[in-house]
Amino acid sequence: MSRIEKLAVVGVGLIGGSFALGLKGAGAVGRVVGVGRGAANLAQALARGAIDEATADVAAAVDGADFVLVATPVGAMEAVFERIAPRLDREAVVTDGGSTKASVIAAARAGLRARIPQFVPAHPIAGSDESGAEAARAGLFRGREVVLTPLPENRPAVVDRVREAWQVCGARVIEMSPTEHDAVLAAVSHLPHVLAFALMHEIASRADGDNLLAHAGGGFRDLTRLAASHAGMWRDICLANRAPLLAELRRYQDELARFGAMLEQGDADALERALEAARAARRGWTGGGAPD
Amino acid sequence: MSRIEKLAVVGVGLIGGSFALGLKGAGAVGRVVGVGRGAANLAQALARGAIDEATADVAAAVDGADFVLVATPVGAMEAVFERIAPRLDREAVVTDGGSTKASVIAAARAGLRARIPQFVPAHPIAGSDESGAEAARAGLFRGREVVLTPLPENRPAVVDRVREAWQVCGARVIEMSPTEHDAVLAAVSHLPHVLAFALMHEIASRADGDNLLAHAGGGFRDLTRLAASHAGMWRDICLANRAPLLAELRRYQDELARFGAMLEQGDADALERALEAARAARRGWTGGGAPD
Repeated sequence: MSRIEKLAVVGVGLIGGSFALGLKGAGAVGRVVGVGRGAANLAQALARGAIDEATADVAAAVDGADFVLVATPVGAMEAVFERIAPRLDREAVVTDGGSTKASVIAAARAGLRARIPQFVPAHPIAGSDESGAEAARAGLFRGREVVLTPLPENRPAVVDRVREAWQVCGARVIEMSPTEHDAVLAAVSHLPHVLAFALMHEIASRADGDNLLAHAGGGFRDLTRLAASHAGMWRDICLANRAPLLAELRRYQDELARFGAMLEQGDADALERALEAARAARRGWTGGGAPD
Repeated sequence: MSRIEKLAVVGVGLIGGSFALGLKGAGAVGRVVGVGRGAANLAQALARGAIDEATADVAAAVDGADFVLVATPVGAMEAVFERIAPRLDREAVVTDGGSTKASVIAAARAGLRARIPQFVPAHPIAGSDESGAEAARAGLFRGREVVLTPLPENRPAVVDRVREAWQVCGARVIEMSPTEHDAVLAAVSHLPHVLAFALMHEIASRADGDNLLAHAGGGFRDLTRLAASHAGMWRDICLANRAPLLAELRRYQDELARFGAMLEQGDADALERALEAARAARRGWTGGGAPD
């Protein structure tokens, strides 16, 4: 790809910091300016070499930048787009790292207005329960999927430039419609997060919660790991992708009701068939990133 | 502890094999006879040195044994107890590795009859989605909790002997009533397994399941890891601990309904409070065995 001269990263957390480190590691970027509200986090990003300069002034940061990554929680993006629109270079491209796409596109249309053709929505499927610049690393996107949901207004050269930047970070880049993206992610990411948060919340809020947690083992640890994720970020995602997420939640509630009925009826055969089908599917599934 | 001369392990899987390897590693056992129905699995156990002799004849295996571990799926235990009762040495002690305790105690009373004072129920909290002798290892119980639920009929010396054997394997041994054990485990182990099986089953049984799985990442991997567990074993556990498990399932369904209501109402503040409380509890929890 043609080198990025000045990269502005708005929100220097796990995603933003890793994007900058990935491009730097590949020698694909000149100067990186990081924008954020947390001084300690920006200092971390500077110390780790993810960014060369830190500022709280988003408009100044994009001034002269030829590439902009917006990697704040999705609920904060509309305000960011609004602030960068007047200062955005006409040749600059903008992408994002948000876990929902229809809501981010609506925010971008409202905030960027006439500059919308310069924005190519993206979702790197590489989140974790870690967050902040201290968790960032150059290899985060290596072998991971990044979903682009290009807009009708995007010229092919703009999409290419964004695709190549993610590819330089090691990602496998694919394309989907925003609607398909949001439906798929509601099922395989957003719902699992809600299930983990709900289990942890239910157990921890009980009078005997401490006793229960004292005896919990590896199974509980697996089921609740996602509940360690950033609360504000996930509040935003849940609300931004509310309709598809609610549809998935209903499906899951129906499935739990079926399991409950099998238990109540003591239907050993039906229960074993369901468990065996789930087991075979899980053992046959080779995705999910690095083995663990 | 005083050395075990002949140990009979009925069901040489992850738990049975690891118990034998742990005792052997500590030089605390003479001969180990493994009982099982799967020839390939017994051959594995022999090859790995977990057992010295393999047989399908459970009565012959306990003949002359001074220590017996029953580590089959809990649904198979009553038949095992029935078969070993007539051949059990009067000085032998018996323990088990079952994940439910009230049901195992009922099975032991029905099967062992007059020999019930020789049986000390135990649950090593060290399961995993791995199973079979090939997954067994000497260190499986190191630092893990083993719950004993002694019976009124047990003499203290019998409980001591069983406690010491688990301690030799590296376990932290605690005691509970069977009722408390089953309630706690329903919440922190059996329910999480059901949630994982249900999620995997729901996704995999959809027409678009393959497409969904192709885009699933680390979050889905965590949530569904337990769905790779042994189906027959978990069918037994779910049915054996049905009432406490159903009570936990109801609580969880109520919690999911509350999350659904927050989403429907778009109640960002309540949602963030719940997510933040879950996150704080998860981050404050130091259990769950080895870090990951």
